[in-house]
Amino acid sequence: MVKVNVMYPYAEGARFDHAYYRDRHMPLVKARLGDACAYYTVDKGLTARTPGAAVTPGAPPAFVAICAFICDSVEGYQAAMQAHGAEIVGDIANYTDIVPLIQISEVVVERAEG
Amino acid sequence: MVKVNVMYPYAEGARFDHAYYRDRHMPLVKARLGDACAYYTVDKGLTARTPGAAVTPGAPPAFVAICAFICDSVEGYQAAMQAHGAEIVGDIANYTDIVPLIQISEVVVERAEG
Repeated sequence: MVKVNVMYPYAEGARFDHAYYRDRHMPLVKARLGDACAYYTVDKGLTARTPGAAVTPGAPPAFVAICAFICDSVEGYQAAMQAHGAEIVGDIANYTDIVPLIQISEVVVERAEG
Repeated sequence: MVKVNVMYPYAEGARFDHAYYRDRHMPLVKARLGDACAYYTVDKGLTARTPGAAVTPGAPPAFVAICAFICDSVEGYQAAMQAHGAEIVGDIANYTDIVPLIQISEVVVERAEG
């Protein structure tokens, strides 16, 4: 199982429409990925923290938004993106002017409660 | 609901013991966070991707490891970290020499399957 993270770096004055992202863009991507994606998550960056220090309310987060697509395989994700990537990338300008950083990870622990 | 992401930036030659992180460090942190943390996830970075481009197998990921603690509130997380932060931070040298980047996000979509 792999996780594809799409992370939008914080930049002073950059545009990001969180409502459009949640309500339009992410459901579009999920629809195009189809069964290649088991589920997705969406987070809105609030603040940063230094290891061992308290949360600093004013410190901007590294990323204004982070999403994750949890997929069975890189190959399945990649095949869907080859078919629908142009449409998906074309929708990005509708909610942001930030170029996202994309990372593919191996899911080591999907969800542990204890 | 908030998500605390701890992200370890990739650096050529840096040390990261994924087994220790999964088997020792993360369960320790969860134990200390207690009920303040509902569950956690652990990912191991594989590769990077440019928006609209194919996955480049050789491209290093932005982060060698990313974990997330899903918590009811920033306050609950912060209180637990104030009590146990020194022990947790003290364990970091046992698995890595990378200084992590920490971000607190609002969970916008916890898990969507369609």
